[in-house]
Amino acid sequence: MPDAVPAFVWVADLGEPEEQVILAEDASHHVARVCRARLDDVLTLTDGRGGIARGHVERLSPRVEVRIDTVERRKRDSRHVLLCGAPEGQRFDWLIEKLSELGVARVRPIECARRAWPRVAVRPDRWRRLALAALQQSRGCYLLQIEAPTGLEEALSAESDATWGMLADPDGAAAGGIEWPAIGTTVAVVGPAEGLTDAEKTSVLSRGFVSTSLAASRLRTETAALACACRWAATRTSQD
Amino acid sequence: MPDAVPAFVWVADLGEPEEQVILAEDASHHVARVCRARLDDVLTLTDGRGGIARGHVERLSPRVEVRIDTVERRKRDSRHVLLCGAPEGQRFDWLIEKLSELGVARVRPIECARRAWPRVAVRPDRWRRLALAALQQSRGCYLLQIEAPTGLEEALSAESDATWGMLADPDGAAAGGIEWPAIGTTVAVVGPAEGLTDAEKTSVLSRGFVSTSLAASRLRTETAALACACRWAATRTSQD
Repeated sequence: MPDAVPAFVWVADLGEPEEQVILAEDASHHVARVCRARLDDVLTLTDGRGGIARGHVERLSPRVEVRIDTVERRKRDSRHVLLCGAPEGQRFDWLIEKLSELGVARVRPIECARRAWPRVAVRPDRWRRLALAALQQSRGCYLLQIEAPTGLEEALSAESDATWGMLADPDGAAAGGIEWPAIGTTVAVVGPAEGLTDAEKTSVLSRGFVSTSLAASRLRTETAALACACRWAATRTSQD
Repeated sequence: MPDAVPAFVWVADLGEPEEQVILAEDASHHVARVCRARLDDVLTLTDGRGGIARGHVERLSPRVEVRIDTVERRKRDSRHVLLCGAPEGQRFDWLIEKLSELGVARVRPIECARRAWPRVAVRPDRWRRLALAALQQSRGCYLLQIEAPTGLEEALSAESDATWGMLADPDGAAAGGIEWPAIGTTVAVVGPAEGLTDAEKTSVLSRGFVSTSLAASRLRTETAALACACRWAATRTSQD
């Protein structure tokens, strides 16, 4: 049997040092059963908004109760936002997991001319569960924010304070020749499975977005989205 | 009903201009039924070894017969090789699809101290089918080469002529500070779900591999592998 896994748990509110936090039912189960925590074990908690707390277990049942020892808040100097057309099938579900692991700040599903989001594919509760699980698994401190699907124009307007934008386009400039900024709010637009129309591309480019080809071959929607997330992760030059 | 999809088909051998190529049964089905090709339609064929041919359909049934018009061979100035520990569950299956899309040359599953490849997860025929499907879907001209699982040392020795190597390591230097070479044979080592042991890491690093942290948080095996593939795709500075 492997050693107990050190627990890393999302909670809505971290509280302050010396305060007590009572974990929700599923988090209690995770800590007590999956991680097999014992009394006085140290846990790490995050609120998914940059806060990290350490605390120790004071009670295991019926809910895990944690006494907070320290709270640290991290400053975020970059935010990566993905506007993503509908991929085929249920591929968005695992994209959520990957975007979470890679530290993307926000994803906005966009309705496009060639593909709308099928109603059965839009599962906000499931998406949030996947994002929370990935946050804990990857020990991140920022929860992926998942917006409801909107039109492309509406999504672009909602992100109009971004400092840099990129359009994934097989006909764009090769990604290797383009510098992705390491700080600020940056936005990437990835079209749906059938691609964006010329009118949609023109609209994105008219806002100053850089047209970029992410790989030598044509990428599926979710692969292009992942390539953006990986590229963002690679702009990080320090271990913070 | 959408327009017919232009067909892009893998064949074992492209032949020469003016020669005739008879497609295999599944490729014939794909071209005639899925892409709904007609007589005289132009097809693109690849041998998955850098060859791209154009030809036109001379016969649709029982097999599609193609008369080759032109053959072009692309020179490959970089090869990306992934040595990959076992991820959880069946996650390697979709990793194959993503590595194929992103143009990775070769993947070697590696047996590690903390996780071996479970026999049921090793499915070479299925992997090859997935790689072929992804090659065609992404219109690439290099088929992902998938080796049988071997020990880490054996895999490293097999790639000893590589020009650069990288070890994915959460404790390594941030990826943004490291230049990935755009040419030559480059190797990335990604550990299994439970990570590499210190002895395994030492062995890899003793060969001059660079220890690199790919993201701020801990990545799953398949996510780290994907981050390498995306990073490689981003070294491409031209559209070739």
